Amino acid sequence: MITILGSTGTIGKNTLSVLKNSEKRGQIFALSANKNIRLLFLQIKVFNPKYAVIMDESDAIKLIDLCKKNSINTKILFGKKSLSFVSSHKKCTCLLSAIVGGAALQPTYDAVKSGKKILLANKESLIMSGKLLLTAAKKSGATLIPVDSEHNAVLQILSSFGVSYNNQTRKYIHNKVKMITLTASGGPFLNFTKKKLEKVTPEQAINHPTWKMGKKISVDSASMMNKGLEVIEAAILFGLKPKQIDVLIHPQSIVHALVKFTDGSVISHMSPHDMRIAISYALSWPERSDISIPDLKKFDLEKLTFQTIKPNQFECLDLCLKALKIGDNAPTILNAANEIAVEKFLQNKIKFIDIPVIIDKALRSIPITKCSTIKSILACDQHTRDYIRNFINIKWK
Amino acid sequence: MITILGSTGTIGKNTLSVLKNSEKRGQIFALSANKNIRLLFLQIKVFNPKYAVIMDESDAIKLIDLCKKNSINTKILFGKKSLSFVSSHKKCTCLLSAIVGGAALQPTYDAVKSGKKILLANKESLIMSGKLLLTAAKKSGATLIPVDSEHNAVLQILSSFGVSYNNQTRKYIHNKVKMITLTASGGPFLNFTKKKLEKVTPEQAINHPTWKMGKKISVDSASMMNKGLEVIEAAILFGLKPKQIDVLIHPQSIVHALVKFTDGSVISHMSPHDMRIAISYALSWPERSDISIPDLKKFDLEKLTFQTIKPNQFECLDLCLKALKIGDNAPTILNAANEIAVEKFLQNKIKFIDIPVIIDKALRSIPITKCSTIKSILACDQHTRDYIRNFINIKWK
Repeated sequence: MITILGSTGTIGKNTLSVLKNSEKRGQIFALSANKNIRLLFLQIKVFNPKYAVIMDESDAIKLIDLCKKNSINTKILFGKKSLSFVSSHKKCTCLLSAIVGGAALQPTYDAVKSGKKILLANKESLIMSGKLLLTAAKKSGATLIPVDSEHNAVLQILSSFGVSYNNQTRKYIHNKVKMITLTASGGPFLNFTKKKLEKVTPEQAINHPTWKMGKKISVDSASMMNKGLEVIEAAILFGLKPKQIDVLIHPQSIVHALVKFTDGSVISHMSPHDMRIAISYALSWPERSDISIPDLKKFDLEKLTFQTIKPNQFECLDLCLKALKIGDNAPTILNAANEIAVEKFLQNKIKFIDIPVIIDKALRSIPITKCSTIKSILACDQHTRDYIRNFINIKWK
Repeated sequence: MITILGSTGTIGKNTLSVLKNSEKRGQIFALSANKNIRLLFLQIKVFNPKYAVIMDESDAIKLIDLCKKNSINTKILFGKKSLSFVSSHKKCTCLLSAIVGGAALQPTYDAVKSGKKILLANKESLIMSGKLLLTAAKKSGATLIPVDSEHNAVLQILSSFGVSYNNQTRKYIHNKVKMITLTASGGPFLNFTKKKLEKVTPEQAINHPTWKMGKKISVDSASMMNKGLEVIEAAILFGLKPKQIDVLIHPQSIVHALVKFTDGSVISHMSPHDMRIAISYALSWPERSDISIPDLKKFDLEKLTFQTIKPNQFECLDLCLKALKIGDNAPTILNAANEIAVEKFLQNKIKFIDIPVIIDKALRSIPITKCSTIKSILACDQHTRDYIRNFINIKWK
């Protein structure tokens, strides 16, 4: 049975839309939402889960009331600990971790320790606690399946490894994969000079050429931080050395990833812009669903272009590679500093080109340590945020 | 141990160059050549096979003499029956069928009946006797691995099927593959009008924009007959319905095949122009070799373009689809008629645009029958050749 943490978000909604048309429709164990009671209740009515979790007690009381009035026997829980309860419950075999931010770390980790199949849509889980997750997965037999289109594309290409892909894939990659390439659309500032970048406004940064997304991730796409974070995720998930990962600019965003083998073959994955494809694959992995996704847009192969990235072209991407090479808590520091920097840029407090300056400052100032518990990782995250807020307040007063 | 039929041809030489650097170097069971004693003897010296086969007795006598003088204990055989002897010998586990033309049919069929792993580089085997081979493979457990770059690309994409791919792959394709696309460079006459095509000379047809190849296959590339024959091969090998196969013009010849799944994903295979890649994969299948191929050229991803084919754009391609739909001996008739037509075009006896006219004539005139033996297939091939030679002599006197 499946638990979906973050069922009212974009990934959660798309996952439920895929499940609705599949034979797994009746297998929802638990749903969770942060605040959106209305949508959560609608989902409860359709999917009839054993449990639903909401963050606040007051919201839980309203939900219990709604369920009673409609004779629905879903049990309503609230609070962070309930997320861990439903994610690691023995009746749950599969977890979709689609909560945004650090809140996903503990329930995801608990599910990994319990040996579940984990569909990873939460970026922080790998960036901040990737090593912990993989060590725990090795011990428990849990499988980590990426839902992000690029990583899912890599998994689809390497999918010939049967069920225990975590270990077998790593050995295979070590022997037979020369390079994994993630593609990036290049964002709205692809060919901007440094001078032009200085004057970039939040409005321009949010206006992504191919994807309509939230503000934070749009800025991350414009700065290539998003791709850099994906490089870190790929390195952790697939056990890649930094020199085995490459980024190619591909403005059409049709090819999501390419895997180059030592024998000279390159296998690539292409698909229309529709996250249901990756979700559907993740849900059916190691099989492939034989059900056509309805209303899937066609994509145009006519002209695919690719550009290599010049050294120093994207400072945020370079900083991600730096954090990856440093290891330990460096990706946590990088991620936290970037979040604050982007927040301040969106508030017009700093310039676009200040974002990498701030991240670099954090990587140089916060001590690099091994964090071996979720608690210590979250503490490092909080400390970085406080430090960087303070730093910005002083420097950009 | 491996038998290579046609070891002195391009595929044979490339296969030996791949084997030379691999651990299978010492596992050559037999080599065969048509006429090239000198090269065959050099290969015997390097690879020390148990047997070597040459067509004529007089050549065999010379080879025996050479081997004696050099204290080589390879046994020299001659004649067609010896090809079957080495291809179906119980010590041979793997056959590379790389002889050109109908001569490959009997020894390939015999190897299939003996349950070998067959690396197919001979086009006629599938075009003329595909159904026989697959029926025999199903019975004996033989595996047919394509060496042709497009089909090998499809196999690489679908390679997650373990050892018995013939049947499993067919079931998988039936359920989960929407479309298989083979790419074509488009040849030298891609955008020629019918009027311009009328004046095309053999010299122009031989001058292929991307590949340096033999005359016959260059003409087949220019007429798209080569791609059409590949469509027939793919349909037989992978159990595809005609509407599941597509051809896309791709002038850069980097992407060799694309597989579109019902869940919306498209996986493609790319590689430099080097047949050692497909050979190396075929030799190591179902594994992938972890040895880098030396001196492999890099390929340029910068700009990949694709064009769909308009109806009636390539008459020879349409005729191949027609023969595929007719089934039975229609592909044999098509192939034989095309060979004679191309021969006559190269001799300046007919025009380039007469080639499809002649093939169409053959498909309309020669009776369609089920050929259930290699002998009857070869008879149909011979009859078509005689008929078409006669037809051309009368019409283009």
